[in-house]
Amino acid sequence: MPTLFLTRNDVRGLLNMADVIEAVEQAFRDWAMGKASMPAKAYLLLDKGDLRAMPAALAGSAGMKWASVHPQNCSLGLPTVMAMLIYNDPETGYPLAVMDATEITAYRTGATAAIASKYLARKDSDTLGIVGAGSQAYTQVTAHLELFDLSSVRVYDCSQAAVDKLIHNLPESPLQACTLEEAVASDIVCTLTPAREPFVKREWVTPGAHINAVGADAEGKQELEPSILREAIVVVDDLRQASAAGEINVPLKKGLFRTEEVRATLGEIIAGQKQGRTDEKAVTVFDSTGVAIEDIAVADIVYKQAKQRGGYLSLDFVEG
Amino acid sequence: MPTLFLTRNDVRGLLNMADVIEAVEQAFRDWAMGKASMPAKAYLLLDKGDLRAMPAALAGSAGMKWASVHPQNCSLGLPTVMAMLIYNDPETGYPLAVMDATEITAYRTGATAAIASKYLARKDSDTLGIVGAGSQAYTQVTAHLELFDLSSVRVYDCSQAAVDKLIHNLPESPLQACTLEEAVASDIVCTLTPAREPFVKREWVTPGAHINAVGADAEGKQELEPSILREAIVVVDDLRQASAAGEINVPLKKGLFRTEEVRATLGEIIAGQKQGRTDEKAVTVFDSTGVAIEDIAVADIVYKQAKQRGGYLSLDFVEG
Repeated sequence: MPTLFLTRNDVRGLLNMADVIEAVEQAFRDWAMGKASMPAKAYLLLDKGDLRAMPAALAGSAGMKWASVHPQNCSLGLPTVMAMLIYNDPETGYPLAVMDATEITAYRTGATAAIASKYLARKDSDTLGIVGAGSQAYTQVTAHLELFDLSSVRVYDCSQAAVDKLIHNLPESPLQACTLEEAVASDIVCTLTPAREPFVKREWVTPGAHINAVGADAEGKQELEPSILREAIVVVDDLRQASAAGEINVPLKKGLFRTEEVRATLGEIIAGQKQGRTDEKAVTVFDSTGVAIEDIAVADIVYKQAKQRGGYLSLDFVEG
Repeated sequence: MPTLFLTRNDVRGLLNMADVIEAVEQAFRDWAMGKASMPAKAYLLLDKGDLRAMPAALAGSAGMKWASVHPQNCSLGLPTVMAMLIYNDPETGYPLAVMDATEITAYRTGATAAIASKYLARKDSDTLGIVGAGSQAYTQVTAHLELFDLSSVRVYDCSQAAVDKLIHNLPESPLQACTLEEAVASDIVCTLTPAREPFVKREWVTPGAHINAVGADAEGKQELEPSILREAIVVVDDLRQASAAGEINVPLKKGLFRTEEVRATLGEIIAGQKQGRTDEKAVTVFDSTGVAIEDIAVADIVYKQAKQRGGYLSLDFVEG
């Protein structure tokens, strides 16, 4: 029985954002309805970074993403985050595919934020603000443009070069450079920075806005002034993970926010078990930390597309 | 930067038992001395089996084995246990290799038991008893023959065909078929069955014997009468794992054994931190559940041998 091997280039060629959004939305719905399983991430701490195992199973698919986070890699010309994914047949455990998961991570992160915006932002949202124009910004823009008819996407980064590069690389999107304050004043805001101190001020956020807080993904990180969370309708991808490493982690530790104040998980809202936005003037915040069901849902697309198209590297790995 | 892809056949050709024993012994020593790290296994439970992530880091190497256990696979002509391993550079997180880990698992399990025998069995041990002639039996025999000058290896299995096959496939080893009682009456005994009820009787065990209890690897499994454990010097690979899923798990739950009665871990004995056998007449038991440091130590050999020999499949997986 063959195992498929898919490089980063292969994976990139097999993904499109509309499919990813549909699959990730379904994965969150299934998870909320008890049809998916996802144990806690297992962290392997190393001197210069860490490696983390992210296993999950959905109806008909199972697997595990193994991602490295090494902040000093940029000085070596290597990505800070690298990831591989093993995709298994849940019926037999057979490893059907091994694939690079760098693109999968980027696509599913963008898709999840856009899905959160779909359920939490005002239906008439017209402007998107991107705070942080690094590699995560691309899929945030493309995913939101799949679901929203936006008149403008305002981009801020402390590096003007990063802003210019993003605008240059997405020539068909309505991107424009702006100040931090202007980006935050959008109908939908995506914060995508590695900040450890809150820099998004309460006074810049407009009534009725929706914020996807994506940057905080480790203990000690935060992007938003805690007063924003206190007044907002807060939704998380996974309460345990968000409490430990998401946007709410520092405010929780400082006693400025309580887990009971979290309105719902994204899955509960998608499944119709809880309500998200109940007031056009309210600010909504989605705390995104990234969960393995997103990765497995996307890996399932990649595998099926690769099988259908054919021509990819295939080895009889286990028996051979 | 290339990532190596090594199939089961490739891995088999790169391993030899003497190297594996040396590397696994060093891994246990380093772990006891705080120079290795190993978080708990993460289990993904599925309808027909499970998948488990086993991450570990040693000095200079890191990685994760992802193993499936699906008991109904034999009816489909597939192995019950399959495993892949991602081997990373701990300095950067880069995935240096992806390899089949079926052979790695078999080699390291045999090597670990033989290392336990080296430290716990009497120096003049002359006979080895193998209880259960399935796939694990091969490496138990070859590993013990590396370290002991044995006059006979007695093999018992409820399937005569399995015994015949093992003897046929190891023509240069001093193997002979025997009864269960005869196998258990050896100087060194390896129990390798999936039993859920104790079948190794106290009265069959000879004074001064050493038993490697390898079969129990999940809650509810056990092979030895609890009276054997109560009277023996008991050593484990990992106390947390042995308590949950090893030979001691059922006696612990039934109150027939206490964790305080465990003498030491194998690593502590290898590192000279604790004593193993202190009496020539005592029975010693090693409770082997299998730990990820063993796998990563062997993967390190495989990777270095493959790099040295060259000619293996290599792809620019992450960048490409």
